[in-house]
Amino acid sequence: MSNPQASQNRYRADLREMKFLLFEQFRLGEILGHAPFEAWGVDEASMVLDETYKFACEVLGPLNTVGDRSGCRLEGGRVYTPEGFKDAWNKLAEAGWRNVSVNPEWGGQGAPHALYALVEELLSGANTAFNMYPGLAHGAAEVIQLFGSQRQKSLYLPPLYGGQWGGTMCLTEPHAGSDVGSSRTTAKKLDDGRYLIRGTKIFISGGDHDMADNIVHLVLARVEGAPPGTKGLSLFVVPRLRVKDDGTIEGSNDVAVGSIEHKMGINGSATCVLNFGENDGCIGELLGEVENVGMAQMFKMMNGARIAVGVQGVAVASSAFLNALDYARDRKQGPSIDHWKDPTAPRVPIVEHADVRRMLLEMKAKVEGIRALIVKLALHQDMVHVHQGSDDQKAQYHQGQVDLLVPLVKAYGSDQAFRVCEMAIQTYGGAGYIKDYPVEQYCRDAKIFSIYEGTNHIQAMDLVGRKLAQRGGQNLQEFLGDVAAFVQKHQGHPTVGPYLAELGGAQEALAGTAMRMLTWFQTGRMPMVPLAANRFLEMMSAVAVGWLLLEGAVLAAEKAAALPNDESAAKDRAFYEGKRHAAAYYARHVLPEVRFHAEVLGREDRSALDIPTDAFATL
Amino acid sequence: MSNPQASQNRYRADLREMKFLLFEQFRLGEILGHAPFEAWGVDEASMVLDETYKFACEVLGPLNTVGDRSGCRLEGGRVYTPEGFKDAWNKLAEAGWRNVSVNPEWGGQGAPHALYALVEELLSGANTAFNMYPGLAHGAAEVIQLFGSQRQKSLYLPPLYGGQWGGTMCLTEPHAGSDVGSSRTTAKKLDDGRYLIRGTKIFISGGDHDMADNIVHLVLARVEGAPPGTKGLSLFVVPRLRVKDDGTIEGSNDVAVGSIEHKMGINGSATCVLNFGENDGCIGELLGEVENVGMAQMFKMMNGARIAVGVQGVAVASSAFLNALDYARDRKQGPSIDHWKDPTAPRVPIVEHADVRRMLLEMKAKVEGIRALIVKLALHQDMVHVHQGSDDQKAQYHQGQVDLLVPLVKAYGSDQAFRVCEMAIQTYGGAGYIKDYPVEQYCRDAKIFSIYEGTNHIQAMDLVGRKLAQRGGQNLQEFLGDVAAFVQKHQGHPTVGPYLAELGGAQEALAGTAMRMLTWFQTGRMPMVPLAANRFLEMMSAVAVGWLLLEGAVLAAEKAAALPNDESAAKDRAFYEGKRHAAAYYARHVLPEVRFHAEVLGREDRSALDIPTDAFATL
Repeated sequence: MSNPQASQNRYRADLREMKFLLFEQFRLGEILGHAPFEAWGVDEASMVLDETYKFACEVLGPLNTVGDRSGCRLEGGRVYTPEGFKDAWNKLAEAGWRNVSVNPEWGGQGAPHALYALVEELLSGANTAFNMYPGLAHGAAEVIQLFGSQRQKSLYLPPLYGGQWGGTMCLTEPHAGSDVGSSRTTAKKLDDGRYLIRGTKIFISGGDHDMADNIVHLVLARVEGAPPGTKGLSLFVVPRLRVKDDGTIEGSNDVAVGSIEHKMGINGSATCVLNFGENDGCIGELLGEVENVGMAQMFKMMNGARIAVGVQGVAVASSAFLNALDYARDRKQGPSIDHWKDPTAPRVPIVEHADVRRMLLEMKAKVEGIRALIVKLALHQDMVHVHQGSDDQKAQYHQGQVDLLVPLVKAYGSDQAFRVCEMAIQTYGGAGYIKDYPVEQYCRDAKIFSIYEGTNHIQAMDLVGRKLAQRGGQNLQEFLGDVAAFVQKHQGHPTVGPYLAELGGAQEALAGTAMRMLTWFQTGRMPMVPLAANRFLEMMSAVAVGWLLLEGAVLAAEKAAALPNDESAAKDRAFYEGKRHAAAYYARHVLPEVRFHAEVLGREDRSALDIPTDAFATL
Repeated sequence: MSNPQASQNRYRADLREMKFLLFEQFRLGEILGHAPFEAWGVDEASMVLDETYKFACEVLGPLNTVGDRSGCRLEGGRVYTPEGFKDAWNKLAEAGWRNVSVNPEWGGQGAPHALYALVEELLSGANTAFNMYPGLAHGAAEVIQLFGSQRQKSLYLPPLYGGQWGGTMCLTEPHAGSDVGSSRTTAKKLDDGRYLIRGTKIFISGGDHDMADNIVHLVLARVEGAPPGTKGLSLFVVPRLRVKDDGTIEGSNDVAVGSIEHKMGINGSATCVLNFGENDGCIGELLGEVENVGMAQMFKMMNGARIAVGVQGVAVASSAFLNALDYARDRKQGPSIDHWKDPTAPRVPIVEHADVRRMLLEMKAKVEGIRALIVKLALHQDMVHVHQGSDDQKAQYHQGQVDLLVPLVKAYGSDQAFRVCEMAIQTYGGAGYIKDYPVEQYCRDAKIFSIYEGTNHIQAMDLVGRKLAQRGGQNLQEFLGDVAAFVQKHQGHPTVGPYLAELGGAQEALAGTAMRMLTWFQTGRMPMVPLAANRFLEMMSAVAVGWLLLEGAVLAAEKAAALPNDESAAKDRAFYEGKRHAAAYYARHVLPEVRFHAEVLGREDRSALDIPTDAFATL
């Protein structure tokens, strides 16, 4: 490589902050050591973070720039990944970090999702493009584990979880993106119960690569005679190479790579056009036993994938923030504001300048708040497992919160990741725009997060069109109730109390807007809903993030008060002060936006609907 | 090129909208035909736009992707621009569009700046990276024209304006970016009155290239013994090749290209490290007669350069918007919302979906509003020329508005350009992320606009720290007065009236915040000022843009009412309706933010100042 930085690790994570979330704020220790997490304790979980971070920095981080610069190439019908990727793939499989939360029955370690979410962040942050390959294999395995027959599980799970095989999700077609129900890929049942697959899928991440012996495609297709739309779609297991019942490989399955895309970012991840059955030789098996339930199965997979996108967002944003912080501490420029007109005053690191501090604190608040939301969501997933079978009501509450928070994590996590990367570039100044520093790549990589796995508008419609109405609206009521109870409990708090009025006001504005949207549904003003959906999602995300940041700040104040008043506690004291200031900043600068958004939506402006299509421009 | 799109023109502009601004809203016709624009009429100005657009699409547009993909290369100490650039450079010089507003004394056509701003937009939008080379030559010429000796003008202006030579601005050094006063480049006076220049400049756009016979560098340097800081800087004319008094070239002037940067975007523009006088052979001439006035001279140049960056912003954003609109009209996906649950309903172009319309209208409002602000600013420049010498008070008013609006145009124009590009990508969905479509390049190109020619925080500090106080605050008072008078006059307007309350509220919130900031200065709370500056700039920009959009809407309503009520007027009717809806959208969705910002600043939150530097993260 001509660029000397190309094989350096630039990834940065703040493990102290991650451990604060897991073990202090969300008290993971309380569920460790008991079923279903009996094998885990705080020390084990903590060690996993330390070791994963070490692995991420040593193995994946140095390949992030390499992957960006060299990209993938298509040669002789096969995709070749950047130099070093295959070695990293093997090392990751050997290390096993990806499988910490997989059921021990399938070779995993049965850890909580809350831990896995942070492991995923460390892997994604160090090398977003690389981590998509094992991440998609993992996702495909999860779907097969959930819906596959015993035979399918025995055949596919060990090599997928074990890192011998890759996996993909094949949904999108040239004319079916957000409108997945328009898929034209067909499946024709053969006499032996298997299916002949024919069709073209596009934008398939990891659609082919040279790191694994085989790739298992999960393909949405329509069985001949099935109904139109999403209700007629089935999910098929379509390996790149056919597999015998004993797991050995039989030969080609007529899956061809048409081309790979040239993209703005995530260049190390091969985005493929896949042609299935060009020569009438592509055989797939129905996932499970029943046709026409492919969308429901895919949605299960999408949930995990959507959380993973939110995790990608915070992972990249966090490293962008921490790199910008490093740079700001190091780079000297200008005098302090107390001597701003004195040209002979000593130059200070830019971290001392007010506007740089403002950007750093905004990045910190957003990164840490969104991370808290992700861990909260993952913990709800864990609590479903804890309570399943023993306390159905609690399990339902937690599952309801999972459903409600997934679109927030995906959409807010990705939108804000792009904003944080933009701000990180701005913190660097001109240096941020050049490839010697990592933030321009982070910004390019992050742009896809708002688009794939369902655009952020799809997320917003999922939230307002489906999730708000689930369980008769109870999920939302419980969420609002949790926030209100927190406000109620702590409003007299000496340091955090003053900010709780902001959270209370935001929570009420959110509740009011939810009611307003309900009346739109009820009074036939449906088109107002998609017009308002993105803003509503942002409002709800801000309430959720603000709540969790303030919760962290209350705890940090307690912890700080209990510290010994000497130098030995200086680092901890600084850490807890950081939590308080981040929460204060978010409460004072971001939470007020919720009321503003409510006011704007209250105007029920229809301009975007009413403008004639010809009036957008004269072309 | 492997990419078939690489030599296609993708540039789009809406000339109808440009002409509306010039000739309808800002009534340029009223000053054409009179001194100093006696040679110009509406038809001539209109023709310049038509022909420049044609040139931009035919010559520059097809090279935009080429330049991005191949970039520049440094070979044997010289920079080579992408294939086709040299030919385009020659054609542009021949066509002369760049010189429409240059004084006829120097070979130009003496047109108003308001026309030139749109010519600049057309050239920049078609190929941002390319247009920086002639743009910087133009900027260097303007400074020499303003401050140079007669000999300097005669020697340098003809080849700079004529397109034989290039030009640069050399400010930034490795340790002097925003803090330009820390420059270490030195100038030692020689016996013949010329100076020996020594030092290294970085981030020099067009620092070298193969399109011109010579390059004239304007270099900030400190004469031996001059005071520290900005007050000891002088500006020098330093040609790459020495020039004899008869204009012929004498040979090397010891200016060497150290390296070129690899960047996120504007890859066709060479960003150079320049070493002056490595071999003690670099000779410069003082610009004008006086030492230590380099900053003031540079600021004059910066004014033009900063406006040009705002123009770059709107240029790229506008084409991103229009390309997204094209795509949205063409791309079919999903049924209309009236049949959203019917899988057999016909698929509609995505321009019919509410969220896509919301994004398109937001892009339209921002693009057209910022363009209006730029034309308004340019017209103030023209009015200074009209009134100079005859009505000093009017000239001062217009110059005051120029000074006030420059930072708005630069910072708001660039920040919003990036947002519009982001939204254009989102409108495309997955297609927006791949290089087959132009918007991902626009987004990468646009990111630099918020950084160069003074970061946007430098702009904000220029606004609140200098411009608000100019003429004892009169510039701001006159601006606020102009807005208030507009609100007053039209608040009863049948269609636009309802939106004027938003503008009035925003104007009052802006005025209140300006007062608040004044008290910070007066009561020793200086550090609050930089903390609030960016937000204040955004508030003021929103007021300015909202005002001009609503002014356009009032006019559009009048014009629409006067149209014949038949098919012949369909296009005009659609156009005027578009203006109304864009203004309505901005008034209802963006203007309320001004009050919100005022509320946030009213909290006087100091978190970003108070957080200990060690508390940002534990690293």
